[in-house]
Amino acid sequence: MSAASDQSFVVGVDFGTLSGRAVVVRVADGAELGTAAYDYPHAVLTDSLPSGTPLGHDWALQVPADYVGVLRHAVPAAVAAAGVDPALVVAIGTDFTACTMVPTTADGTPLCELAAYADRPHAYVKLWKHHAAQPQADRISRLAAARGEPWLARYGGLISSEWEFAKGLQLLEEDPEIYAAMDRWVEAADWIVWQLTGRYVRNACTAGYKGIRQDGSYPSRAFLAELNPAFAGFVADKLDQPIGQLGEAAGTLSARAAGWTGLPEGIAVAVGNVDAHVTSAAAQALDPGQLVAIMGTSTCHVINGAEAVAVPGMCGVVDGGVVAGLWGYEAGQSGVGDIFAHYVPPTYTHERLTELAAAQRPGEHGLLVLDWHSGNRSVLVDHELSGLVLGETLATRPEDVYRAVVEATAFGTRTIVETFERAGVPVREFVVAGGLMKNALVMQVYADVLRRPLSVIGSEQGPALGAAIHAAAAAGAYPDVRAAAAAMGRKREAVWRPDPRASAVYDELFEEYTRLHDYFGRGQNAVMRKLRAIRRRAVRS
Amino acid sequence: MSAASDQSFVVGVDFGTLSGRAVVVRVADGAELGTAAYDYPHAVLTDSLPSGTPLGHDWALQVPADYVGVLRHAVPAAVAAAGVDPALVVAIGTDFTACTMVPTTADGTPLCELAAYADRPHAYVKLWKHHAAQPQADRISRLAAARGEPWLARYGGLISSEWEFAKGLQLLEEDPEIYAAMDRWVEAADWIVWQLTGRYVRNACTAGYKGIRQDGSYPSRAFLAELNPAFAGFVADKLDQPIGQLGEAAGTLSARAAGWTGLPEGIAVAVGNVDAHVTSAAAQALDPGQLVAIMGTSTCHVINGAEAVAVPGMCGVVDGGVVAGLWGYEAGQSGVGDIFAHYVPPTYTHERLTELAAAQRPGEHGLLVLDWHSGNRSVLVDHELSGLVLGETLATRPEDVYRAVVEATAFGTRTIVETFERAGVPVREFVVAGGLMKNALVMQVYADVLRRPLSVIGSEQGPALGAAIHAAAAAGAYPDVRAAAAAMGRKREAVWRPDPRASAVYDELFEEYTRLHDYFGRGQNAVMRKLRAIRRRAVRS
Repeated sequence: MSAASDQSFVVGVDFGTLSGRAVVVRVADGAELGTAAYDYPHAVLTDSLPSGTPLGHDWALQVPADYVGVLRHAVPAAVAAAGVDPALVVAIGTDFTACTMVPTTADGTPLCELAAYADRPHAYVKLWKHHAAQPQADRISRLAAARGEPWLARYGGLISSEWEFAKGLQLLEEDPEIYAAMDRWVEAADWIVWQLTGRYVRNACTAGYKGIRQDGSYPSRAFLAELNPAFAGFVADKLDQPIGQLGEAAGTLSARAAGWTGLPEGIAVAVGNVDAHVTSAAAQALDPGQLVAIMGTSTCHVINGAEAVAVPGMCGVVDGGVVAGLWGYEAGQSGVGDIFAHYVPPTYTHERLTELAAAQRPGEHGLLVLDWHSGNRSVLVDHELSGLVLGETLATRPEDVYRAVVEATAFGTRTIVETFERAGVPVREFVVAGGLMKNALVMQVYADVLRRPLSVIGSEQGPALGAAIHAAAAAGAYPDVRAAAAAMGRKREAVWRPDPRASAVYDELFEEYTRLHDYFGRGQNAVMRKLRAIRRRAVRS
Repeated sequence: MSAASDQSFVVGVDFGTLSGRAVVVRVADGAELGTAAYDYPHAVLTDSLPSGTPLGHDWALQVPADYVGVLRHAVPAAVAAAGVDPALVVAIGTDFTACTMVPTTADGTPLCELAAYADRPHAYVKLWKHHAAQPQADRISRLAAARGEPWLARYGGLISSEWEFAKGLQLLEEDPEIYAAMDRWVEAADWIVWQLTGRYVRNACTAGYKGIRQDGSYPSRAFLAELNPAFAGFVADKLDQPIGQLGEAAGTLSARAAGWTGLPEGIAVAVGNVDAHVTSAAAQALDPGQLVAIMGTSTCHVINGAEAVAVPGMCGVVDGGVVAGLWGYEAGQSGVGDIFAHYVPPTYTHERLTELAAAQRPGEHGLLVLDWHSGNRSVLVDHELSGLVLGETLATRPEDVYRAVVEATAFGTRTIVETFERAGVPVREFVVAGGLMKNALVMQVYADVLRRPLSVIGSEQGPALGAAIHAAAAAGAYPDVRAAAAAMGRKREAVWRPDPRASAVYDELFEEYTRLHDYFGRGQNAVMRKLRAIRRRAVRS
């Protein structure tokens, strides 16, 4: 690191589900000097297009111009807030929700910006939580299993409806005219970098986790043709593109983007990245065995390993998916903070319930919960599962259920950690990031249930800081992301320590949780699926 | 029936948990002419005696003078409200909660009314829901099973902590001085008749269901001695007493009681009875195969059969326990309306949730509930069981859970009905009484789940009307209770009829309910018991 870096800065921009946030960071030590956010004017389109055209069930779209608004508003505002001379900014890095897909022309223009297609739902951005491609995802998973496709094991055996192939196949089958007009099917993480640089570089992270790129190649033309003959050219015609490794420069800031952001033309722009994965750098957790849990409405788990092994029920394992040179593993819990919120009755608050629940001893409420209210991402990979609350009596109070739900998500995390370890991916350190790290009850319960100390990221803007670290690496201020993270990341170790007496009670409860988890989740009693089937019939009739 | 009965009346008095209600009824046709209620000033003592002496966990006591208050206030008020000349009242009948026990001297004076014992909890009335005798009940059931006592099968294999022997043994073991001072251990149903007549007659109903009197005898001295040597004389010294059959006169109204009530001295006083059992007469449901469900906070099921057969999980079968000449069977669900109330969130009401829930199709909410929030009385007889809500998602609303809970109690009822039928007690007609008969959602769900029409009692004061019918029989206005019920009772037949399409969905859901019922309730997965054990440890530590 050069002495000059005391006077050099980078900008990290985190593109979330409802807004984007920019942070200005000092290259020398990662100090966060200024930040600003910008809410997407169109937020998430779930009911209709801006024109009023209605959308189907489970749709979730966005408007790409909203992302540019973050560059135009939040970036200059953050630089101003930092009191930093823009001329001293040496690079910009980004992270994005994923898998969020933009259909574009050959020059990157989103199809929804063409007047001819402004009223066509499939011309818009399909946000990560667009779940209307489930039938296509099911077909992809089934066919891959039937054909014995080797890449299927890298995704725990199932391809998600959220990912590039399922969403692309839905687009083809529901609006072939838009599919024909679409030159490129672009991750928003890469589209925003394309806007910044004028160059389209596909990042190794989403290409692997969301784009089924494994060992340098994609699902074969034969496989795609068997899905749908018109889909045979999907990879070659719409998807394939040179890959950029995380922490490399995708290019330099274009004159146009310099105009938007107020940053100097020609500075380095980092390869695109994903919000969860970029956080590992901010949390100084890039070594094999350091698991980062980004805990919010849902939880994403990221951990590196020296080699690729098959972990049952993981979301994916990708070479260089978190940091170049290691295999990055991802797992997740599809509902966490949003399940807590579901159990806050009218006239109560999270704060009040947390206070009441924290006063209890483990086991005192007599409840056991299965935390599947949004299905189960890992390790069961089954979104037909649902929640269960067991043990309630007439004396059960809202704070009892609230605490039991917190504990259930901790049991879900323990299930994931133990699955990693049994598969040969040891978890040496558990590092927490995300909004729930501020909740003392949640943190203590997790430490007790996991029987291990919890480290905590030292920034409240983990993803944006992580993006800034990748920018510093892309600018050459550090030899690589690992070195940049060592200087600029922040982690407090063993902030929460397990109480052995609580852990002993939780061991007993976890045994019961696991028994219910396997009984309802592994097919012994398929009642949750049956209830969904009955429900679908009832709604249709 | 004599022509004179157009001008003769009876009074029925229903002693409930928190109040007593008197109703004046015309003998000729059962018309209810006036009613009045009286709230017990001491209600239920659960925390402390009136003196402030604290009570233990699960205690529930009452003050017997409160019952006399009903005679002194509610009876004259009802007569006044009816505009009837008290001289035309020919009899009075009563019904009571059970098993509710009064410890008395030889002349019937409650021990708590003696100054020496006014501060001793065991000198007070133990209300039916006093549950602190569970250890004694467990010992009674275990010893009876070990010794092969023949009477055990008449109670579905388990003796309840609510009943005479468990409560009596607790009294002996916790306060032997009170036990020694106690000459009689009296059902409140019989104590109130003793107050009215000056004579102590033990009614056949509670002697059988609550007092383990079968085939004319009680548990043996040898059995009692093995429980506790000091308990050997319990039956002979404290309990045994001439039996009165239901609908007979226990005696005539004493001068003292005539003074309290304003009724003529010397009129007939019916043998004591129980609130649930007396309702069968009011609902004209005394024939074999007519099942009466008294549905309120909990549900009691009463049905007559021509012979005694062993029904798994019933509360009891007693010769003449409902009407002389038939075997009366009792079963129950320990939580019904109180579970509905548990799932009304702040800012919601039963009415609003009922309205919202009634608009749904069966199966639409995707939920399945086990209705064991107060344990399971029939057919599992296990108060360590607890509630379960399965299928919840983040989209689940309070009305969804509310409807699922209603359905769960209907599934519980269907389980009881099917158990009776499989055991050889056919259920030909299902008759509803109790507060929930007014809820259209509940009634329709029950009809659909049971796949049979529901009849409904034609009175809102079922127990008091039933007591009045027994009074008329005791006065000789009719040859027996059956004839009195035919003239004075009221029932509307097939008020609610099943919808075959709804029933088909409920058949599917009931199959899933039964699978969960057996899995959690019959020992395959004892997690509910384990959670209670863990909870007890946590609370103690």
